[in-house]
Amino acid sequence: MSAKHNVAILGASGYTGAETIRLVHGHPNLKLKALSGHSRAGQKLSDTYPNFGDMQIQKWEDIDFTNIDMVFACLPHGASQETIAAIKDDVDCVVDLSADFRLADPALYEETYGRPHAYTDLLETAIYGLTEFSRDKLKGADLIACPGCYPTCSLLSLLPGIEAGLFNPNNIIIDAKSGVTGAGRKAKEGLIYSEVADGAHAYGVGSHRHAPEIDQMLKRVSGQETRVSFTPHLIPMNRGMITTSYVRLADSVSAEDVRKAYAARYKDEPFIRLSEGVPQTRHVRASNLFGLGVFEDRVPGQLILVGVIDNLVKGSAGQAVQNYNVAQGWDETLGLEALPVFP
Amino acid sequence: MSAKHNVAILGASGYTGAETIRLVHGHPNLKLKALSGHSRAGQKLSDTYPNFGDMQIQKWEDIDFTNIDMVFACLPHGASQETIAAIKDDVDCVVDLSADFRLADPALYEETYGRPHAYTDLLETAIYGLTEFSRDKLKGADLIACPGCYPTCSLLSLLPGIEAGLFNPNNIIIDAKSGVTGAGRKAKEGLIYSEVADGAHAYGVGSHRHAPEIDQMLKRVSGQETRVSFTPHLIPMNRGMITTSYVRLADSVSAEDVRKAYAARYKDEPFIRLSEGVPQTRHVRASNLFGLGVFEDRVPGQLILVGVIDNLVKGSAGQAVQNYNVAQGWDETLGLEALPVFP
Amino acid sequence: MSAKHNVAILGASGYTGAETIRLVHGHPNLKLKALSGHSRAGQKLSDTYPNFGDMQIQKWEDIDFTNIDMVFACLPHGASQETIAAIKDDVDCVVDLSADFRLADPALYEETYGRPHAYTDLLETAIYGLTEFSRDKLKGADLIACPGCYPTCSLLSLLPGIEAGLFNPNNIIIDAKSGVTGAGRKAKEGLIYSEVADGAHAYGVGSHRHAPEIDQMLKRVSGQETRVSFTPHLIPMNRGMITTSYVRLADSVSAEDVRKAYAARYKDEPFIRLSEGVPQTRHVRASNLFGLGVFEDRVPGQLILVGVIDNLVKGSAGQAVQNYNVAQGWDETLGLEALPVFP
Amino acid sequence: MSAKHNVAILGASGYTGAETIRLVHGHPNLKLKALSGHSRAGQKLSDTYPNFGDMQIQKWEDIDFTNIDMVFACLPHGASQETIAAIKDDVDCVVDLSADFRLADPALYEETYGRPHAYTDLLETAIYGLTEFSRDKLKGADLIACPGCYPTCSLLSLLPGIEAGLFNPNNIIIDAKSGVTGAGRKAKEGLIYSEVADGAHAYGVGSHRHAPEIDQMLKRVSGQETRVSFTPHLIPMNRGMITTSYVRLADSVSAEDVRKAYAARYKDEPFIRLSEGVPQTRHVRASNLFGLGVFEDRVPGQLILVGVIDNLVKGSAGQAVQNYNVAQGWDETLGLEALPVFP
Repeated sequence: MSAKHNVAILGASGYTGAETIRLVHGHPNLKLKALSGHSRAGQKLSDTYPNFGDMQIQKWEDIDFTNIDMVFACLPHGASQETIAAIKDDVDCVVDLSADFRLADPALYEETYGRPHAYTDLLETAIYGLTEFSRDKLKGADLIACPGCYPTCSLLSLLPGIEAGLFNPNNIIIDAKSGVTGAGRKAKEGLIYSEVADGAHAYGVGSHRHAPEIDQMLKRVSGQETRVSFTPHLIPMNRGMITTSYVRLADSVSAEDVRKAYAARYKDEPFIRLSEGVPQTRHVRASNLFGLGVFEDRVPGQLILVGVIDNLVKGSAGQAVQNYNVAQGWDETLGLEALPVFP
Repeated sequence: MSAKHNVAILGASGYTGAETIRLVHGHPNLKLKALSGHSRAGQKLSDTYPNFGDMQIQKWEDIDFTNIDMVFACLPHGASQETIAAIKDDVDCVVDLSADFRLADPALYEETYGRPHAYTDLLETAIYGLTEFSRDKLKGADLIACPGCYPTCSLLSLLPGIEAGLFNPNNIIIDAKSGVTGAGRKAKEGLIYSEVADGAHAYGVGSHRHAPEIDQMLKRVSGQETRVSFTPHLIPMNRGMITTSYVRLADSVSAEDVRKAYAARYKDEPFIRLSEGVPQTRHVRASNLFGLGVFEDRVPGQLILVGVIDNLVKGSAGQAVQNYNVAQGWDETLGLEALPVFP
Repeated sequence: MSAKHNVAILGASGYTGAETIRLVHGHPNLKLKALSGHSRAGQKLSDTYPNFGDMQIQKWEDIDFTNIDMVFACLPHGASQETIAAIKDDVDCVVDLSADFRLADPALYEETYGRPHAYTDLLETAIYGLTEFSRDKLKGADLIACPGCYPTCSLLSLLPGIEAGLFNPNNIIIDAKSGVTGAGRKAKEGLIYSEVADGAHAYGVGSHRHAPEIDQMLKRVSGQETRVSFTPHLIPMNRGMITTSYVRLADSVSAEDVRKAYAARYKDEPFIRLSEGVPQTRHVRASNLFGLGVFEDRVPGQLILVGVIDNLVKGSAGQAVQNYNVAQGWDETLGLEALPVFP
Repeated sequence: MSAKHNVAILGASGYTGAETIRLVHGHPNLKLKALSGHSRAGQKLSDTYPNFGDMQIQKWEDIDFTNIDMVFACLPHGASQETIAAIKDDVDCVVDLSADFRLADPALYEETYGRPHAYTDLLETAIYGLTEFSRDKLKGADLIACPGCYPTCSLLSLLPGIEAGLFNPNNIIIDAKSGVTGAGRKAKEGLIYSEVADGAHAYGVGSHRHAPEIDQMLKRVSGQETRVSFTPHLIPMNRGMITTSYVRLADSVSAEDVRKAYAARYKDEPFIRLSEGVPQTRHVRASNLFGLGVFEDRVPGQLILVGVIDNLVKGSAGQAVQNYNVAQGWDETLGLEALPVFP
């Protein structure tokens, strides 16, 4: 067996970083060598995450990257591109879990994230890693942009139908629901338990940053400009995400046609489960699975696609590992074989 | 002051019955005289609901209705119509919280609930009590059918726009999310805590029984046949409901026009709150309030209406009390003035 | 009827303040005239609490107290005594919900809260308002110190047995569990939903500030120095508190003797419910009730007392209102008659 | 490498069975060959647990045990002993997760579980597998009785101090809190979400069946008859258990002495973590870890031990796997290396 790849995880103190640590720990080909965390440099990881061991958190500037083969960057948007630009030449591959390299068009990035992209040369080389639709490009990639959690769940629901011309790409409504870990580990009043438990609400209505990212991929696959309706909701659970997508069927296409097309497209996918019943987030919890149900609407010509993921795994750290597995030509399921944790 | 009205609550052991008990207790003009509960007859109410007192639960057949002025019927669908038919002549008014008198068309009732309606004569006299849109008919009514929780939240979101011709009534998608009390107090495996907590799922996709009820009222107001898309989701909270409605604006209608029309239509409504921000279920908890936000979609010509209620209050027992207040010509807020309980 | 008393609530932006607003709103003899909130002065109350109306929040310095009859002070410890000292002469009565006037001994206050008490003259006049054990002193009081939530639940569980000499006051262990609202409305990392949901932990083990307060009252009643063992736990719920108290029975006292003594002591108490079964926090939710179960331990001579309250009501704002009712000679249940909200 | 051991899991439809499936799936030396489930025989596993695959559930009578090396029995108490008696000779080892072989004394079994033990010959041979205290006996065992979840958490907290004579074994109070999965997967009214969420309560006060099991092991280690006080509470979370134990220190023993003794006793234990701070259930979630904090009480001579586990892993399926690893002489951590899932 070849030696394990040495891994650094940047931004280890957020939930995305923590989930990446958990998955790297169980990966047979990866070895965690360094952790960075801006505000917690000098502390032990277990001070922040008692579920983990005592590894030291450093500033990323203090990590010796000549020792590191690959980096998972779990930094905030904006900070991520700067750090990656600084270290990229020292390592073989960077897998970025932030939004910084997701939108290929710098103008769209600026419009969406409110500041110009400072490394457009890097942006040009980044591969958007929605694994099931990006494998060819991922092979050997050295900068991988992992999709947002909402785009992952939405696009895995929609793309096979778009690819096959079964849906009208210009009349798509996505109503999404997410657990609270999607909001990250921030000491904000609106996130404290008493403000979140036993209640629910929409947010970012008409303006969420993940909508342009969904459009970008729909356009790549459909060849048409699209503009999806996308509304996320926060619901009181830790992990889990549902996207309920409403699409218009192309002429003379039936729900059964759609089911067959999806079954064919996804038949060899290790992490995709088509279900006859309604998929539930709890049944994919802590796993890299995407679950999908396809339902005829009571409105003629309309279809409902219900997709579920664990936002921290398939929606973030799990897909990042999956992407790296593909980039290295490894078995795609390495480190991701664990069954969901339920209940 | 005139004497209080004597009240019997039938079906006291379910959550709807319990919530009605709670509200009647705080109502200055109502006095609870009798409780029925089929399987718990002979027990004390506090055996089932330790939050309440020791009143005796009877079989409804054992209640002396000559002593009773009005009845809140919180019985299961099917059982409700039979019981109401048996007691109706003995009391001045029955407010039914079941589905039995909601659908005016017996054929539609049979199609939706899987059995013929056995009391179509009563059905003809029943008043559908979506209070804010039924006041004229409610005055003096002796049989009131309270809307389902989903229809209440959906219709209060949609009707002002439909009334004013601002929306296309034939292109409406309602994505709904409900807390668990909406499923009632049933010992079902799928409802136990471990199966519900920390997860979410859609259910009844394309086939929920509340969709025809929504259509019925949309048609009454728009004068057109409609067929809404309606998809409910179960989320891990006790009380609360969101309906996120996606509508197409009529030509040259703006979101601002809609906001103004709603403000005008609802300006004197004691239980309706239009909010600039996103309404949250937790901020109407345990109250009879309906909260609504109106948002421009990123898709041109499309609008998003987010409505919230407490499914057990405005979606059930609270609206029932409100309807009875209207029927009696009392101040509509009697017994319903309590502020929301948050957190 | 005499005119309503004009009320100011200081510290309206915390959960204690909010709960006081909710209860004052439903109180027939009280009228809310002014709200203070340091960091939110100038905002509308509904910006912070959309469940409430649009009343303006002021700095307390800007309130005209000549207009105010009584004050509920819901300020942080330390800030409370300063503000109360400044306004006390302007109003007839201050009911303080902070810890500042709970400990009668200034030295103990300093030891417990880490700073000297600056208004020991006021401290001498303050009445400790554990209502059921303080009524005589509360009549006509002009400064009332409301007990902490843990002391309220613990002392209502223990005092009748201590009073009657049924327990050894020197061998008491209190294991307490509280919902998250007890920690207040603070943007702290340890309080965000993802850090609290689906888990539990002890805190303040061996050192919680409520232990000396419990000792103080046990000593007053027993006449002996005591030192209780007290360990609180945080559990994932909004409201609710359990104290499970382990006591040693005095010689030849039986559990049945204890039950009888409690029944006699509490028989006319409007807010105390002795239950044969195990009391549950959810059955007192949003009410001023205290529920108590008395159980024989399997260890001979040992007894287990399980007490439950809603920490924000009987443990805070509800008891504050109850105390004011007593101070004014009003019916003690005014504004507190609402039944628990369950589920 | 030797061939994998073929495993049958009996009682696959409960949470204990499901968790065993999850762990066996990730175990390098075990291969799942058969599943039984009385009421679901003939169904696919995924019908009950969509988080798992499509393996067939059989009646245990239909399993060919000649093909099976070892059995995890996750059956209800009572049913377990009968099934194990029937199959025991066909397989090399049975690991029983029920209560049937935990209490060595048949009379105590009968008193505790309300029926006589029918297989006292088997009972004599069963090894009580509290792994950290049973290793010598577990080597080569062919019938292993896994401890209850409460005894596991309590005994791992208490035994090192008892062994070393640091505590009085006759004055122990254990106040325990458990998540809802501990109650199993039963369609009971008291377990439905709305009855459990946002509340807490004690149960089995003074009479829980796990108390005699704790006594049994305390006696084995201390050599004295003991009778612990044990009170469990149900709190609204899926997984997790805390035991807060109050013990009296032997003369001239300090908390620091205890900490040192525990550190020495547990220093090579792969699944035990002593923490300086307070351990939290969420930080051991979905892992086989036991976390412990040792705290000086404010009552002189008294100590507080706070232990946490995931009730389904270390409290059940994880310890079962650990026991089998020991019995086979394998590395004890096989299949149990996964880090906790947090949040």
